[in-house]
Amino acid sequence: MKFASIRAAGEALYGAVTEAGFIALSPNFPQWATLTEVIRAQALPQLAQAAEGASVTHDFGSFTYDMPEAGGEKIICVGVNFPDRNAEYKDGSQAPANMSLFPRFARGFVGHEEALVRPPESHQLDYEGEIAIVIGKAGRRISQADAYDHIAALTLCNEGTIRDWVRHAKFNVTQGKNWDRSGAMGPWLVPFEDAAQLDDVRITTHVNGELRQDDRTSRMIFPIRRQIEYISTFTTLMPGDIIVTGTPTGAGARFDPPIFLKPGDVVEVHADGLGTLRNSVEDET
Amino acid sequence: MKFASIRAAGEALYGAVTEAGFIALSPNFPQWATLTEVIRAQALPQLAQAAEGASVTHDFGSFTYDMPEAGGEKIICVGVNFPDRNAEYKDGSQAPANMSLFPRFARGFVGHEEALVRPPESHQLDYEGEIAIVIGKAGRRISQADAYDHIAALTLCNEGTIRDWVRHAKFNVTQGKNWDRSGAMGPWLVPFEDAAQLDDVRITTHVNGELRQDDRTSRMIFPIRRQIEYISTFTTLMPGDIIVTGTPTGAGARFDPPIFLKPGDVVEVHADGLGTLRNSVEDET
Repeated sequence: MKFASIRAAGEALYGAVTEAGFIALSPNFPQWATLTEVIRAQALPQLAQAAEGASVTHDFGSFTYDMPEAGGEKIICVGVNFPDRNAEYKDGSQAPANMSLFPRFARGFVGHEEALVRPPESHQLDYEGEIAIVIGKAGRRISQADAYDHIAALTLCNEGTIRDWVRHAKFNVTQGKNWDRSGAMGPWLVPFEDAAQLDDVRITTHVNGELRQDDRTSRMIFPIRRQIEYISTFTTLMPGDIIVTGTPTGAGARFDPPIFLKPGDVVEVHADGLGTLRNSVEDET
Repeated sequence: MKFASIRAAGEALYGAVTEAGFIALSPNFPQWATLTEVIRAQALPQLAQAAEGASVTHDFGSFTYDMPEAGGEKIICVGVNFPDRNAEYKDGSQAPANMSLFPRFARGFVGHEEALVRPPESHQLDYEGEIAIVIGKAGRRISQADAYDHIAALTLCNEGTIRDWVRHAKFNVTQGKNWDRSGAMGPWLVPFEDAAQLDDVRITTHVNGELRQDDRTSRMIFPIRRQIEYISTFTTLMPGDIIVTGTPTGAGARFDPPIFLKPGDVVEVHADGLGTLRNSVEDET
């Protein structure tokens, strides 16, 4: 089952995506305006039930994808979380003792098949393919053993970055990570029901068909259970919150010379079971 | 005029604070559930009009303060923004070319006269007194000349920090800046009507009556007009968004030995025209 947020004829809808098209479900659930509210109500199973046997309401091509859900209270990204990625920084530092974290705002993301926007201020737009988890159950100081019980769904993220602005200031990557429409999330939410959906999943990023990133979640320096434990030490994780779990080596900045995205490029982030998040690139108009 | 968000008898209300007490106004404006929604409707003047001549509905002592408004889409804090503050880092670096920015989540803040919470994981809870601005009009790539037109109101912030967690990881201060209830905002919103409310205002922080921070907004390395210009380069500022504009030198971490907050301490952040944000400290229970 796959749940998406879309726009069709000027209307925002949520529903299920099947091989045949989109099944609008939001008209059946007026009590929940968005997929975030569905998640807060822990009602993804009710959506799945409503989708069973229902007919397609929107053919492919008749709608556009939004970000599946806008992140509840917060979107937290994990940095430098795959082997070799720390070494890429070439600063001689050891593997870090704790994970690096930075928040992103929802307006930094577009949906599946929307264009990433390269701003006039910088041509260093770069991709980072990642798996994102959506929190389904609130918690503070969650143990690693319990961590997966707090995940409602999974999706993909292209954690698009304006590289030179990441190091604009003395501390923090905030300004390079939060350009409007510089990243993408989607295509849809896949309900999380089984540890096998996360424990050892291949994640790849292709640019114009060329493989650029290719690794497995089992190789994360800070596994997802640990991410939930660590983040929930200081802040209460709430339903709808999103954790973007880290990108493998191979972003464009790490090539010599760097290969940044340019208008017309197509970036595809793929993980087994989650589909393919595909976005083109365009200059801001 | 001063507008606050309060709780009384289990009910959340907003209204005006006078010398005599609190005047509930939210019952008159059912179309706006929160002060954030009032700001989105650009309706602070309507609130002020409704408060004129109205009677106090809640005496002091019969209500508790919430954070005045929860930050709309985002709360962005400016780091290292006063002279001597960069030197405090003792890393031999020059004054930075661009401001350091980090987001905070609303759940990191309590209201006026609520207790800041020291968690069991660290006893390095520290204060940072700051002025916070609330955006009233959306904008992207706002010029410095127009910047003040985008401010709806001002308030105070104790940008409370868990010092050792600020440097937990290779990049970013996220985890030291986002402990639940580690900071405070308030007591109230003061509508912004005149540049003199911001251009050269004294800001002080006292701990247990002892002056610890004392500087003027005119000495900011990155003035507030520049903050709005720079931040809005990469992200659209939206009504309700908050910018926390930076703290003077003198936080507890900079003493030798450091003087962190402990249960029973009282921190008071004051700025001319904005009142005094007062918070005690307690251990998490």
